[in-house]
Order: sequence, then structure tokens, then C-alpha cells
Amino acid sequence: MKKSMGAKSLLYPAPVLVVGTYDSAGKPNAMVVAWGGICCSKPPCVAVSLRKATSSHRNILERKAFTISIPSETFVKQVDLLGIVSGREEDKFAATGLTPVRGQRVDAPYVEEFPLVLECKLVHTLELGRHTQFVGEILDVKADDAVMGPAEDPDVEKLKPIVFVPGSRVYHAVGRFLGQAFSLGQEP
Amino acid sequence: MKKSMGAKSLLYPAPVLVVGTYDSAGKPNAMVVAWGGICCSKPPCVAVSLRKATSSHRNILERKAFTISIPSETFVKQVDLLGIVSGREEDKFAATGLTPVRGQRVDAPYVEEFPLVLECKLVHTLELGRHTQFVGEILDVKADDAVMGPAEDPDVEKLKPIVFVPGSRVYHAVGRFLGQAFSLGQEP
Repeated sequence: MKKSMGAKSLLYPAPVLVVGTYDSAGKPNAMVVAWGGICCSKPPCVAVSLRKATSSHRNILERKAFTISIPSETFVKQVDLLGIVSGREEDKFAATGLTPVRGQRVDAPYVEEFPLVLECKLVHTLELGRHTQFVGEILDVKADDAVMGPAEDPDVEKLKPIVFVPGSRVYHAVGRFLGQAFSLGQEP
Repeated sequence: MKKSMGAKSLLYPAPVLVVGTYDSAGKPNAMVVAWGGICCSKPPCVAVSLRKATSSHRNILERKAFTISIPSETFVKQVDLLGIVSGREEDKFAATGLTPVRGQRVDAPYVEEFPLVLECKLVHTLELGRHTQFVGEILDVKADDAVMGPAEDPDVEKLKPIVFVPGSRVYHAVGRFLGQAFSLGQEP
């Protein structure tokens, strides 16, 4: 029997995305976002939702660009600190010891220490209420050699991305392999 | 040193969302979607992206409604089969042995066997290229008693949602607890 919980923003798993931007003075900022995901394959696009009150929201509108850096689980403490300190009051990179690197394709910085980076050009802005959804076209994906698999894609067991759990607001690792998609369902 | 991979739709982790719709004759359909996520907290909204060629795409435009059912890892084989068979050629519920249940708040069916369900009213449609992004306002969330935690939210270790890995296209479980958000970063 299912129990009704009312209207809530619950969905599992959610990602941990670090959105990188420059402000009008060129100061790099990094914000942790769990509301986001891929929204188109061709052209490749990603959506992230930010509250209007954030510095990153203003930065994206000004520069029409952002990056997404995906942290490995070894950085979970720094990621959480990024989510606690305010970019308006502190330099988040200094506070966490992380290194901003200027994007090669867009006017936004990414996090050097994180193994996967998406460089995105703003293509749509959708006002939804408390959050604004920004859709970015992914102009390039960069990955550390150390997380690449045998084919041309990253190996999730090397990348070790963090899972965010809305509601109870906890971080989890990615766990064991369950099966190959578009194949498992047809196995006897 | 980061290696450029070009423009690709890669982001980790991605969710496994089963989108439920009715066609014009009232036949229930279920489609597996990895491109999606929460996009607003207030009102609570979720975004899912579907290709125009799918039956579910047409159904959402006609009925202005959809559900999202989130499967537990024990259903990974049925979920994969949902992603392989075509709703146009087969009854996906019959093919997988899953049970469609009429939503209480919207004109769309959900999957009885899956532990968490979002009932969504279509509020925005955004054409992005190969995919159309549908934004639904979440009118209700329903959960099985068995997956609830001590507070009023589901416990992810009972819910056991599936992680989808783009690129290598594999399914993984959610793994071990890493820490409490908005707290871990300030621990000594």
C-alpha cells in the first residue's frame, strides 16, 4: 500500500554537480547543485536549477556560460563545504583548497581536482518558481586519464561520482554493478 | 591532465525513471528515461526528456500528465526490458509482468510494484533537438511503507534506487553512506 506524502521534490538518485562561474570582476565561484541532469543528446545539453538569490545565478546570466565539475567521493568533504559557505562572503576555492582553471571553450572556470568536467554555453533560461532552470549546450567534456575505461568513456568504478539523496540529505557512493543496459532484460 | 572528449551527453550519476502515460485509447505505457531530474523545489517540479518518436511523447502532449515510478534494484531486469520493447508493438506491462495503476491526481498510470511514485501535471514543453524536455509539477509523491525512514522521507537503503551510467550504459546499485550533507564539510 502506497502512502501519499503530498507535493515534494523527491527523486532518487540525484547527482552532485559543482557549477563553476565567473562574476563580473572575474572572481571564480563554485556552487553545489543536486537539481540537474542531461536533457538532450543532440545537441548534448544539460539542465541545472539554481535559486535566484545565488551569486552563480547572476554570473550565468551575465556570462552566458557555466561549467559542471563532477567530484569523486574522495572530495565529499570539500563538496559539502562548498555547499555551506557563501560565495558572496568567502572565496569558496580558497576555503576548500580547490583550484579554479579557466575553461577552454567557455567563459567559466572548472575544478581542476575533479575528474570530469562539462563546458556549457547557456541556451535556455526557464523561470519555474523558487528555482530558475538553465539549459547549457555541452561544448566539451574533459576527463582525467585515470578515470577512463577500456572504451572511450569514463569507467564509473574509477570515477566514483557521489550520489545525493534528497529528503534525508545524505551522500552515498555508487555501489555494485547490476547489469548491462539494453541487454540484461533479454537474458534468460 | 584532462583529456578532451568533445561534445557528449555524459553526467554521473543518472537516474532510472519509469515514465507512465495513457494513449488516446486509454492504453497504459511505461518508458524508461535517464535524462531527467528535479528542476524546482517550490512548486516541486521534475524534468524528463523524451525523443519525439516515442509513444510516450505523444501521450504526454495529449493528456498533459505523466507519472514517474522509481524502481528498486530488484526490478532491474524488468526495467531493462521496458527499455528494449516498443510500446507501439507490445503491451509493455504485459511483457514485464508489471501492474499499471491509475494515478489519483493525474490522468496517467504508475507502476504498482515500484516503491516511489511522482504524479505530475505538464507545465512546460521545451524543444531542444533530438529530445523534448517536459517539465511536470509534482502534485503528489507516494511511497511504499516498507521504504520509509524514521523521519517523513524514504530511506535510500530501503528504497534501493538504480543508478544509470551513461556512456558505458550499465546499471549500478547505490553504495555505502558517505556523510550527512550540510554538516560533513564542517567536521574537523
